[in-house]
Amino acid sequence: MGNIEAPILLTSTTSVPRAADALISYMLALPGNEEVLSINPVVGETNDGYLSDIRGRHITPDDVFAAVKNAKGGPIEEGDVGAGTGTVVFGWKGGIGTSSRRLPANLGGYTVGVLVQTNFGGVLMIAGAPVGQELGQYYLRHELRQAGSGKDKADGSCMIVVATDAPLDARNLKRLAARAWLGVARTGSSASNGSGDYAIAFSTAPQVRIHANDKALTQNVEVMTNDAMSPLFLAAIEATEEAVYNSMFKATTMSGNGHTVEALPIEKTVEILKRHRAIQ
Amino acid sequence: MGNIEAPILLTSTTSVPRAADALISYMLALPGNEEVLSINPVVGETNDGYLSDIRGRHITPDDVFAAVKNAKGGPIEEGDVGAGTGTVVFGWKGGIGTSSRRLPANLGGYTVGVLVQTNFGGVLMIAGAPVGQELGQYYLRHELRQAGSGKDKADGSCMIVVATDAPLDARNLKRLAARAWLGVARTGSSASNGSGDYAIAFSTAPQVRIHANDKALTQNVEVMTNDAMSPLFLAAIEATEEAVYNSMFKATTMSGNGHTVEALPIEKTVEILKRHRAIQ
Amino acid sequence: MGNIEAPILLTSTTSVPRAADALISYMLALPGNEEVLSINPVVGETNDGYLSDIRGRHITPDDVFAAVKNAKGGPIEEGDVGAGTGTVVFGWKGGIGTSSRRLPANLGGYTVGVLVQTNFGGVLMIAGAPVGQELGQYYLRHELRQAGSGKDKADGSCMIVVATDAPLDARNLKRLAARAWLGVARTGSSASNGSGDYAIAFSTAPQVRIHANDKALTQNVEVMTNDAMSPLFLAAIEATEEAVYNSMFKATTMSGNGHTVEALPIEKTVEILKRHRAIQ
Amino acid sequence: MGNIEAPILLTSTTSVPRAADALISYMLALPGNEEVLSINPVVGETNDGYLSDIRGRHITPDDVFAAVKNAKGGPIEEGDVGAGTGTVVFGWKGGIGTSSRRLPANLGGYTVGVLVQTNFGGVLMIAGAPVGQELGQYYLRHELRQAGSGKDKADGSCMIVVATDAPLDARNLKRLAARAWLGVARTGSSASNGSGDYAIAFSTAPQVRIHANDKALTQNVEVMTNDAMSPLFLAAIEATEEAVYNSMFKATTMSGNGHTVEALPIEKTVEILKRHRAIQ
Repeated sequence: MGNIEAPILLTSTTSVPRAADALISYMLALPGNEEVLSINPVVGETNDGYLSDIRGRHITPDDVFAAVKNAKGGPIEEGDVGAGTGTVVFGWKGGIGTSSRRLPANLGGYTVGVLVQTNFGGVLMIAGAPVGQELGQYYLRHELRQAGSGKDKADGSCMIVVATDAPLDARNLKRLAARAWLGVARTGSSASNGSGDYAIAFSTAPQVRIHANDKALTQNVEVMTNDAMSPLFLAAIEATEEAVYNSMFKATTMSGNGHTVEALPIEKTVEILKRHRAIQ
Repeated sequence: MGNIEAPILLTSTTSVPRAADALISYMLALPGNEEVLSINPVVGETNDGYLSDIRGRHITPDDVFAAVKNAKGGPIEEGDVGAGTGTVVFGWKGGIGTSSRRLPANLGGYTVGVLVQTNFGGVLMIAGAPVGQELGQYYLRHELRQAGSGKDKADGSCMIVVATDAPLDARNLKRLAARAWLGVARTGSSASNGSGDYAIAFSTAPQVRIHANDKALTQNVEVMTNDAMSPLFLAAIEATEEAVYNSMFKATTMSGNGHTVEALPIEKTVEILKRHRAIQ
Repeated sequence: MGNIEAPILLTSTTSVPRAADALISYMLALPGNEEVLSINPVVGETNDGYLSDIRGRHITPDDVFAAVKNAKGGPIEEGDVGAGTGTVVFGWKGGIGTSSRRLPANLGGYTVGVLVQTNFGGVLMIAGAPVGQELGQYYLRHELRQAGSGKDKADGSCMIVVATDAPLDARNLKRLAARAWLGVARTGSSASNGSGDYAIAFSTAPQVRIHANDKALTQNVEVMTNDAMSPLFLAAIEATEEAVYNSMFKATTMSGNGHTVEALPIEKTVEILKRHRAIQ
Repeated sequence: MGNIEAPILLTSTTSVPRAADALISYMLALPGNEEVLSINPVVGETNDGYLSDIRGRHITPDDVFAAVKNAKGGPIEEGDVGAGTGTVVFGWKGGIGTSSRRLPANLGGYTVGVLVQTNFGGVLMIAGAPVGQELGQYYLRHELRQAGSGKDKADGSCMIVVATDAPLDARNLKRLAARAWLGVARTGSSASNGSGDYAIAFSTAPQVRIHANDKALTQNVEVMTNDAMSPLFLAAIEATEEAVYNSMFKATTMSGNGHTVEALPIEKTVEILKRHRAIQ
């Protein structure tokens, strides 16, 4: 229907239903929603079963209520937080990452913000520098397997949320979401068999908001023209790429479930980036 | 991109490229298009090879130019005209059919018009009456085969064009097009293996028009709200169903390519409709 | 990935997460699944909030465990059972319905079985007879609205499950599922704005089974050829149509949530069917 | 239907219909096709109107016949050949490029070959080195516009054909094609508004071939298992990335239509690659 009815949650694969159920509880209890008979929650996930007790599904309704109530603007935590606590990316500790780009005023001045939950395989490249290769971290199929699971350890996903204040209709939001993949690709993702990669994009612009219980036959909206989309697309690509890096630079070595996953060795990584002139 | 750049053409399967090429010629030659470097034509088709010399591809550029130039409003020809000349539906002569519904003023007063090119199999039902069954015309797989082609004679398609003056965005146009299939289903289509059924919907409302070379970053549009869509959906279903019937009632017995396909026997059909109280 | 990992559940919209969570619990606890780190449940739904306390989400894990454990072959209950207990269709009591078709031996002898959860609007037609019209039951938009919900009472969905023992690959299963809509269309569905209609198809044929933990690079499968699909498509259309009728004929008048929805008046319906010669 | 009925052609946007029509002529004239009533051609395109007289549509049937008849195995021409003659990529001369990867024997020994027609914008990266940036070639929106066309010069597409001898079903071919985008993304594509990027994948394996006029109800096929797909995905990513580079390294400076587009300056590029340690 083109609208999002509740806050977007990210969690561990098997906890999706519990998170969704708590979100429904939260929404139904909001003042003014007393007669609402349906909520369509959006809950993203990646499989963190290497480090987490994923079978235990430890998310409680209170965890969800707290997450929603404490959501705020401004700088947000990255790395091993929330749904990123147990994720693994490129063989190192992954997590939550975020980044954004703002367009120049003459292109609309809009912002594109991206949040990622990184949990996938490949060989890490940062700004073009072959970090994974130089550090001997080939996180591909046949490298490691989880005992008994029949799944590659490298077989994960990336969940991506793209938010913008540009007034986009559903068609252009879908196109924007698709561009986020180009950013992930630049980081060296191998998009392996088990990846259930998913990107969702939404606009916060009041001009395109769909109002519940709108009784009018038509609605006036202000939408970006197709020809003005290219800068937004580039913003989504760049912000996604950077968000993936941020998820790793902010993550720390983590042990759990009998396994330990090292954080990206930042010092060595910086050396490689310098050697390859990705940074000065 | 959400816009249609040229008139929609319907033709015979193998003539699609020739029709498209002529349409491109026509568009490039229009005053004001001297610097246009691309035209995306939309050309629909069904396979009329049972009655037509489909391998011959007899459509000429002049046929296309004439069709476009002579297009006009008001009542249009139905039955064995244009792309409907050689089509077969439910075992009888098919063709072009059209119908429309207008919404009451309090629902917007919008019109939904449907044009179909009928060329498919099944067992004809008209307004619920089992016409095909009563007339012993089961136009299904294994009934008839075209010699050497490996295709069922019953293996055809329905091409559907849905036009409306309701101001719909791309998302709701796609939903409107999907509803047209419910109308086809009501006529007894079997949607057999070879069917390449296709429906396209567009809006003529100036409020949603995409202007080429629009340099503005944003555009103000007026679009139908989701909650106002249901009457349009019903209009599309009903108009499509009726358009299929019209394509048959206006068609006449046709011979070609060594075959003859009978028109629907109207007198007998009316009797059946009366007996089943579909009409009085 | 082309495989279904757990039994398919149907429930009420807001109870989807609770049903999914219980299903995950059930699957994880199965002997042999001790090391499984992910289950992708499939849970269908329609909104039964007119008759049910949908906000209360009364489904418990034990309800789910019982449903899965007690699943059996042979004749199954229809009408006001399970996820069909609170549904409304064409303005009458809906529910669960099922039907099947078996192909002749020379076409493979395969069976197509369909199960529906009926909860949608429109004007009922049974085997072509205008039952809704004759009984004055126009279950369309603007007829009835649920207080405060902003949703039409007629704004519901149909959930459809298509099962077959024909060995179909993913591509042809998708095509089979699409045909189910033609069956729904024949019953008079208006596919109104709020409909979240969904059809899923799967094959029980051992020849196309995907085995977890299969270490082989390739797998030998036996699949239906495209040219053999048409009879299966027709079977899906007919079985779906009949399943919708069965869901109504087996349902009884139901009160709940301060509302009462009458069952289809069978005696009057039979009269109408006879008058229109849909039955003798 | 899952099968390709004719050789795949690539050409200039406006010449698609002429190429398709000639291909149909060619196929209908093949011995054994005397009774064939339909050919579904696949013709890819990009818009080469900056360098070519795209409005003139100079492709003749003989050009198509010659292309099909002269198709051969072994090393093929790259750069400014065929449909790549007039293309522009990253602000330099683009064209046709190809590359392939062969899997180790223990992963099946299969080959994935990719052919690209490069005609898109962005800022060139080669093996991670910021070639476009260092050479000051930012080929993005608002940099250059074609007079009167309303289209960005940077607004182009990439057409990708992925071929493999791995026995893949339709579902996994679709997944393979999607991976090709990751390879394009690594080269710095901006996927701007006007891009009509398209990837098609097919298998040459006899084990999955669909035979026309197959009268059998079922067919035995041998298909890759899901778990064996990851190496093929990686092969598609890498081969696509390299094919894009090859299209540029083999292209030469080209003038036409009043414009000149320089070839990638190879010497300077090699210096940049060395400086960034992309090569030694």
